[in-house]
This record gives sequence, structure tokens and C-alpha cells, in this order.
Amino acid sequence: MIDPRVASGLRDLPPAVMIPRERMLAAFRRTFASFGFVPIETPHIERMEVLTGKGAGSDEVLRQIFEVTNRGGTPGELALRFDLTVPLARFVARHVDELGVPFKRYAIGSVFRGERPAKGRFREFVQCDFDTIGTESVLADAEIAQVIHSALEGAVVLDFTITLNDRKILDGMLESLELSGRSGLVLRALDKLSKIGPEGVVDELQKEHDQGGAGLNSDQARSVLAFAETGRGGVEVLREAEAALGSNPHAGQGIANLRTVLDLLDAAGIPQHRIAIDLGLARGLDYYTGIVFETTVKGWEKFGSIASGGRYDNLASLFTARRLPGVGASIGLDRLLALLDEAGQLKPAATTAPVLVANFPGIDPVIPFRMAARLRNAGIGAEVYPDPIQIGKQMGYGSSRGHKLAVIVGPDEAIREVFNLRDLTSRQEDKGLSWSVLEDSVQSALQILAQEGHQS
Amino acid sequence: MIDPRVASGLRDLPPAVMIPRERMLAAFRRTFASFGFVPIETPHIERMEVLTGKGAGSDEVLRQIFEVTNRGGTPGELALRFDLTVPLARFVARHVDELGVPFKRYAIGSVFRGERPAKGRFREFVQCDFDTIGTESVLADAEIAQVIHSALEGAVVLDFTITLNDRKILDGMLESLELSGRSGLVLRALDKLSKIGPEGVVDELQKEHDQGGAGLNSDQARSVLAFAETGRGGVEVLREAEAALGSNPHAGQGIANLRTVLDLLDAAGIPQHRIAIDLGLARGLDYYTGIVFETTVKGWEKFGSIASGGRYDNLASLFTARRLPGVGASIGLDRLLALLDEAGQLKPAATTAPVLVANFPGIDPVIPFRMAARLRNAGIGAEVYPDPIQIGKQMGYGSSRGHKLAVIVGPDEAIREVFNLRDLTSRQEDKGLSWSVLEDSVQSALQILAQEGHQS
Repeated sequence: MIDPRVASGLRDLPPAVMIPRERMLAAFRRTFASFGFVPIETPHIERMEVLTGKGAGSDEVLRQIFEVTNRGGTPGELALRFDLTVPLARFVARHVDELGVPFKRYAIGSVFRGERPAKGRFREFVQCDFDTIGTESVLADAEIAQVIHSALEGAVVLDFTITLNDRKILDGMLESLELSGRSGLVLRALDKLSKIGPEGVVDELQKEHDQGGAGLNSDQARSVLAFAETGRGGVEVLREAEAALGSNPHAGQGIANLRTVLDLLDAAGIPQHRIAIDLGLARGLDYYTGIVFETTVKGWEKFGSIASGGRYDNLASLFTARRLPGVGASIGLDRLLALLDEAGQLKPAATTAPVLVANFPGIDPVIPFRMAARLRNAGIGAEVYPDPIQIGKQMGYGSSRGHKLAVIVGPDEAIREVFNLRDLTSRQEDKGLSWSVLEDSVQSALQILAQEGHQS
Repeated sequence: MIDPRVASGLRDLPPAVMIPRERMLAAFRRTFASFGFVPIETPHIERMEVLTGKGAGSDEVLRQIFEVTNRGGTPGELALRFDLTVPLARFVARHVDELGVPFKRYAIGSVFRGERPAKGRFREFVQCDFDTIGTESVLADAEIAQVIHSALEGAVVLDFTITLNDRKILDGMLESLELSGRSGLVLRALDKLSKIGPEGVVDELQKEHDQGGAGLNSDQARSVLAFAETGRGGVEVLREAEAALGSNPHAGQGIANLRTVLDLLDAAGIPQHRIAIDLGLARGLDYYTGIVFETTVKGWEKFGSIASGGRYDNLASLFTARRLPGVGASIGLDRLLALLDEAGQLKPAATTAPVLVANFPGIDPVIPFRMAARLRNAGIGAEVYPDPIQIGKQMGYGSSRGHKLAVIVGPDEAIREVFNLRDLTSRQEDKGLSWSVLEDSVQSALQILAQEGHQS
């Protein structure tokens, strides 16, 4: 016998996890499509050179690459993708001439990283990315936030906040403090604010270079911190920033851009409390050049951001001389599902069909088979129990799988051409309903159950 | 610069391919769910031992395995799955106690085979599998054919035939000719009927063992061929087989089983011309032990079967001592799409949103942004052109992407709070419609276009 386990860091997804996950992905796809984002797919296997090209991934990610070889293949030539961004860059460079720009794509797929396995960390996980390539328009910036909002509004009953910043405002602030040359180090320290607290950040900012710090003097460090700390809230934050930094051209541009984004999101009907500005948000600023996004669920901030992204100047510079600016974001499906699960918002389901049609011992199986087909034709999912075992066992199966109703025809009912309709939760049974009203009876019973479910 | 190509045998799927593909997969998922099949997912990476266990795959498939290693990992330990059946067996063995039986699952995912690249042969392709595990009921057999029928009926405008046979009938026939010991060789020859013709099969059957033949005498070879050749059609084929072989217990069992399947499919409302019996159908009989399925599209038989499967005695014997009989099938998504494409039945699409909202130069972008949001709230997909470029270029983009309508607000329309609605195919424009009737006007125009599309 071979042990049926999966390798370390990998996992099987059973129906109870997959059913809500598929529902969520279907809703995401509908949202992406409603904005004109189109799906693409690239292979799970890429040429190693594509994945390891300079700037493609961080050193950490590159150390975690899974190499792929087949018999007769050359070792070191192929590998599994570690994100969907490098494949997007390659795809766009290869196909941009036939596709044209603006090109709005989404991609949903597994990525692979040989991380040290730990709780909640997997070596294969799904990314849901959407990007608009080939435009610098602020409409495209605002639209990414709008898509995050629409996708989550459909999927998450809990409240959430999309936090925005613009890299250019931070640039302007650092220029005004004559710290432009040290922006990377300053931002790295700022990024730790929620972890190490304000005094920790001030210490970090004042540390010397050789200790991994930014080497600021005390005044500079306090100014940077004050800027980051006071710069959280709504549109008033932008007014204050304008007063303080408006004369700096970079900051002015970033502030104007965020202002327009807020106007556009307001026009699209997004409630103001869903959007926040945070001038200290330093997310992935090595890579992003304009707006950045981060999304947290209220009360569940410890899960971190569940949808993040930003604007980049040049997506595909590794693969083409053509300059391709863009903006996009990624929804962390697995993290979102883990959060919803912990928040008790994820109803695990073990069946996709609300009705179980019993297969009564001694009855011609054509009867339940036909009834189930009729229900499906009326748009009602129905499963026939395959074996004519004891009826109590069939009902037990239905209850445990989460079927809501059972349709039962015993020998007596078969002769009278009637059926019994059993509520598998309350165990109440409507008896002797005519076969001719099968679809209507089941439809009404399901509607009543759905209403009761909403009320409880 | 790095060359943005994909490795040999792999491919990028652009929107024109992905949009119809996603639509088809969504329809398949709805069909599977309506029968109570539930989704599962297993990792793309499995332990090598799981994939290469005796009987897991043919020698050919095992030679094509892609090995996977990461830094610090042991070479030879991990590999990419080559089908979804071995992972299903492993999954069921691991989880059957918590899941219980009958267990009806579907799985849609990429599999990997290092085949020599050739036209239409890819090293990564998608399988759509559905199986009912843990029952020997004939209802489960019939249901698999019914699912194939429902899935294809939604996806394929062309007519198709699901061909059935039962391994036991062939067993009985071979017993009656005293050829039981040679069934593998006989079936391999029979399987070539469509390729090498009847005389070719007779030759093959008479070849000696050392030449790869079955070593039959001329009478035996003719009998086998006659059986396979006359055994195609409807229920009358079963009557003839019963007359000829009914006294053999194996054949009798197989015939009775197919008869019940035909009755059940008829009860489910499946038209008789969609189902055929072929007693010579020898599909994968090394593996299957009862019913077998094969599906061809009428007039496009050269593409081979687009949905195939059968009943097996024991799915997971490599991984558990528990006996788990089952029945299932797999839809060849890529083959089906290639067929539909060649048959001109696949409308390539480059957008998922029917409406393009123009971004007129000099207009406050809040106006188009708000209009697009209103359309989406009314359930109409809408894309805003991101840059305020020349309006003719925006219309050109819309036409080339396949948007149906454009909503245009120029400076004059903005003042009057009206919009123009342009048919991007006919180039006709309804002018001066009030903003207050945006959703209704667009909805009606789309309905008219859809009706015209059906008529043409």
C-alpha cells in the first residue's frame, strides 16, 4: 500500500472548502467581466530564464522556485511560476501587437513557492489578478479600486476598507526633507509601523546604514513619522498634505491624482467609509510608481491585506523595449477564505444540490430517475440516491450532506402516483402530493426554507 | 532582453480562446452541481510514489512524467500529475472515512505530460472529470451518460452520440469462443477497427503472439469481427446479443445492465438518437469492468471521443484495502473546443462587456465613470475607455474588441444631460437620449441586437 498523503506544504481541498471557494471565484469572474476585463491563461510551467530574469522576483522568491524536468529534458531549463505577474509581463510582451492597448486582463491560477511549510502557508496557492496595461489614465487607477470594491461587496458580508496612497506624495515628502537618496531605507522602516510602533520606527530611521537603518537625524526621523502618522483618514488628509507639500511638484501630482480617484469612486457610488487615505502606506514601493492599494476587513486587520496592488511604470521591460505602464491588483483568495472561515462567515457545504430523491427499495428506479430529471429541467439541483438501501439510511445521508429536501416515493405512493416531500432539517413531511405538481411543490418549499434561513 | 516565448509544447491562451472556454467551464460546473457532484481540488504536485505506483499509469504516461524539485528538496520525490484519476484515488483513500459514500465529485484542472510536441498535442492540458465512488448501482452508470448529455447539450449546438457498451458482454462473447485468456490481445485488435478496417482486424487477430497478435484461427477471428460489426445500433442490438449470448452469465448481466441504462436515460427525457450501443466498443478495457462510454459529434467523428469513461471495480486499491467501485467520465475540453473552432461554432470574443463608455476629450471623467457604474448596477457589463483620446480611435477600439454599443457624451451632451448611443456594428447612432433613461435604453438596444443576431 502507498501512503495517500500529500507532500509537505501541499493540501487537498475537500468539497466543504471547494463549494464556497468556487462560488466566490464565479462571483469574481462576473465582476471582472462586467468591467471588460478579459481572462487569459499562461502555462504553469515557464522557461527558467523568464522567471529568474533580473527584477522578475525577489531573491527570496527565486530561492523558492520549483524546477521542472522531464526525461530527455535539460535540467535547469523549466520551472513552475511563482506569481502571475511575471507571466503577464511575458504574455503582454509576446502578444501586445495583436491585442492592442489598453489591455485589461484577469487571471486566476495556482502559483508555487517552496516556502518552509507553516500554518496557513502553502507551497501551492491561488492568485486572482487583474490589471489594465498600456495607459497612465487616472480612470484606470480608480477602476482597480472599484473592482476590488465590487468583488468584495459580493463575497464578504463583513465591512472592509480600501486604503490608498500615492508613491509620488512620499517621494515629495522625502525630497522636502532632502532624503530622496534614502527613500528605500526610509520606506522599509515606515512599513514596520504597525509591527514595531512609532518609537521603533524612529529608532530604525536613526540607525546607521551599516546597521540596516536609514541614518536620519532625530528631526528628520520625527518629521517622517509625523507625516506618516497624521496622514490617515479621508479627503481632509489630502488638504493637509497639500498645505504642507503642495509646492513640491511630485507631491502635488500625487495629491491631485488621489483627489480625482476619490471623486471617481464617489461618482461610482462607493460609500466614503469604504475608502481611506494613508500617506504612510508604503506597500511594495520598490516596484510601484503611483497609486497603491491595500484592503483590510474591519475587525480582522490581523489577517493583513486581502486585496493589494498599485501602478507600475513599465511592466515588461525584461521582455520588450516597448514601454507598458499599467495598474492592477491581486485578491488573496486563500487569505480571504481563511478570514471568512475564522469569522464564521463561511458556511461549509457538502452538496451542491438542494434535493435528494430517494431510491425506495422495491420501486422501479425509473421513477426517482425521472423525477430528478424533471427537477433539474426546472432549474432545481437534484441527486438520486444510487442504491435502494433502507430509507432511513438514505435520509441520514441527505441530512449529513446538507440536502434540504427529500422526495420520497414508496410502493404505495408509486401506485397512487404521489410523493412525500420531507424537510431534512425539521423532519416534517408533506404526504401524498401529486406527481403533476412536483416542480412547483419543491420550488415553493425551497423558497420558504430560504426565507426562514434569512430570518434566523 | 529575454525572449518572451513559452517552452516547447506549452501555450498561452489569449482572451479570444479563454472567453468561450470559461463560458463552457461555467456551464459544465452548473451541470455537475445540478446532479449533486461536488468539486474537489488536489495539488498539481504529487509525491512521485503516488504517481508511479503499479497500475497508476501506463508505461508511456510514466515516461512522460515531469519531475519537480526545489532547493533543499530531494530529487525524484515530487512530480506533476499526469491525470486527475490517480489524485482522485489518493484523495478518496485519504478522506473516504470523513466523506462517506456514495461520493460524487468533479474536478477541473491542468495535467502535464512530456509528450513529443505535435499539432494539437500539448504538454499541459485541462481535464474535466466526474465520478461516483462507492456504489455499483446501475443508476450511477446511467447518470454518468446523463451528465455527459446535459453538459454537451448546453455547450454544443451540433448533434452528438453517446455510445455505450458493457465489458461483461465482450467477456461473455470471448468465453463462448473459449478465448477468455486472450481478451487483452483480442480487444487491442478490435480497438483498431476504425483505423485499419475489418480485414486488417482479422489479420491482426490471426497473427501469432510473438508478432503481437492474438493467435486466433480464421473462424474465431471472423466470429469476433462479426460480433463487433453487427453489434451497433439501438435496443435491437441488445435483443440480438441476448439471443446469441444470453445463456452466458457474464454477457447476460452486461445486457441486462445496458437495458436498464437505456430505460433510465429514456425516463430522463434523453432523445433516443443521442444514444447508441456498440458491442465492439473496446475503450480502455484493461481498466474498465462494466459499462463504457464514448461520445462523438456527428460529422466530426475524426476528432475522436470528446467525453469518455466507464465503470471500474476498485479505484483506490493502491492506497487502501477498502474496496471502492465507481463509475465516471472525463470531458476533453481542449479537444471539444478545437472541434467547435474547426466547425465554425466557436465565436471568438475579445471582450466580456457589451458596452463601451467613451471618454470624450475635455469632459469631466466623472461623467462616463458614473454612467458605466450605473450600467453595471443594472447588470450590464460596461467598460470606460481610460484615456480621453480622439473619439474615432475609441470607437475603433470598441469595434475591434467586439463591444456592441458605445455610450458617448460630448461637451454639448454634457450640458444637456443627454447621451448618444452608437451601434458599433451598423454605426447607427441614437442621439440626445436623456441620462435618466440610460439603463433602459441600453438594455432595449442590446435585446434588439440579440434578436437580430439570432435571426441572422
